[in-house]
Amino acid sequence: MDSFTISTSQRNTFVEITGQVRHSLKRRGLREGIGVVYCPHTTAGITINENADPDVVHDMLLWLERTIPQQQAGFRHGEGNSDSHVKASLVGSSAVIIVDKGDLVLGRWQGIYLCEFDGPRTRTVCVQWLGS
Amino acid sequence: MDSFTISTSQRNTFVEITGQVRHSLKRRGLREGIGVVYCPHTTAGITINENADPDVVHDMLLWLERTIPQQQAGFRHGEGNSDSHVKASLVGSSAVIIVDKGDLVLGRWQGIYLCEFDGPRTRTVCVQWLGS
Amino acid sequence: MDSFTISTSQRNTFVEITGQVRHSLKRRGLREGIGVVYCPHTTAGITINENADPDVVHDMLLWLERTIPQQQAGFRHGEGNSDSHVKASLVGSSAVIIVDKGDLVLGRWQGIYLCEFDGPRTRTVCVQWLGS
Repeated sequence: MDSFTISTSQRNTFVEITGQVRHSLKRRGLREGIGVVYCPHTTAGITINENADPDVVHDMLLWLERTIPQQQAGFRHGEGNSDSHVKASLVGSSAVIIVDKGDLVLGRWQGIYLCEFDGPRTRTVCVQWLGS
Repeated sequence: MDSFTISTSQRNTFVEITGQVRHSLKRRGLREGIGVVYCPHTTAGITINENADPDVVHDMLLWLERTIPQQQAGFRHGEGNSDSHVKASLVGSSAVIIVDKGDLVLGRWQGIYLCEFDGPRTRTVCVQWLGS
Repeated sequence: MDSFTISTSQRNTFVEITGQVRHSLKRRGLREGIGVVYCPHTTAGITINENADPDVVHDMLLWLERTIPQQQAGFRHGEGNSDSHVKASLVGSSAVIIVDKGDLVLGRWQGIYLCEFDGPRTRTVCVQWLGS
């Protein structure tokens, strides 16, 4: 297993980690198989989405913050970050990526993101490769 | 790695791809392991849900369109499909399926769907098998 | 492939299954690889989130029930559980977990949950391990 850390600078933000994941793949030298990119935190997640126009991430965060606001009637959790936990489970704690001919199978506009929902913090990302 | 294409006919629609995925498995001849069904697009995704009553997909699309409308105050992305990107990240870009005794482990009512959120388009679906 | 059953006691509830998944891993004796925890039902799912303070699960369920109510104008599915299908696809039908040094790679606060969205029912959870 491989891992690296990411320092985030805002409460809600996406940080692209495609480079770190590709670097891990090259070091491992896998030709055919899959990679699992995993976030061992309960208020952050992993997603794959557009990395060309930064407005896409802006709009995704806008929707998430508007639909899952931090303060909500009936929330009990004392840390005040229940919204972060909801966002984490919706986005998911991992992304699975196919490896073919020694490279990540990503669409032309796809990048891998660490989704921070309770920053700023330092987050760990774990990567596991399977195949040959 | 295996792949196939799907042509969609509406902006928001789910197209069942269980048959294509099973066909790929049979060709590969895997007995025990997993399959990763991956969508290399940022405005489409993969999900597993009911394939018996088409009203289930109708209702899921209704909720998605109502909760994530195309036009929203504050959206900046010039292509006007930020809602499609949000939907893609919520549903996810892949589904992982267990293979046991040479077949997909799917519940009685489960089918695998390509979720189109910015059609009509021609979409690629990638499938990777791991195991023996 | 391994499997076990869980009996749920409410319509919407999360049941922690980390112990059962770890038990399956120990029996399998895997040292390095991944595990796929899969739910073969269309109105339930699998997620990974906090297992320290039960108020977190309470707040997540509150948001889900408020944002995806059971009765909605336009819903057609005769069983009256379209909300359950929506929730299942948002949370997802599986979780992928990394195995390193013979144990699950989970963060300090992370637990694996079966998410029941149309209980009470008896649910099956399937687990597949890959690696060495």
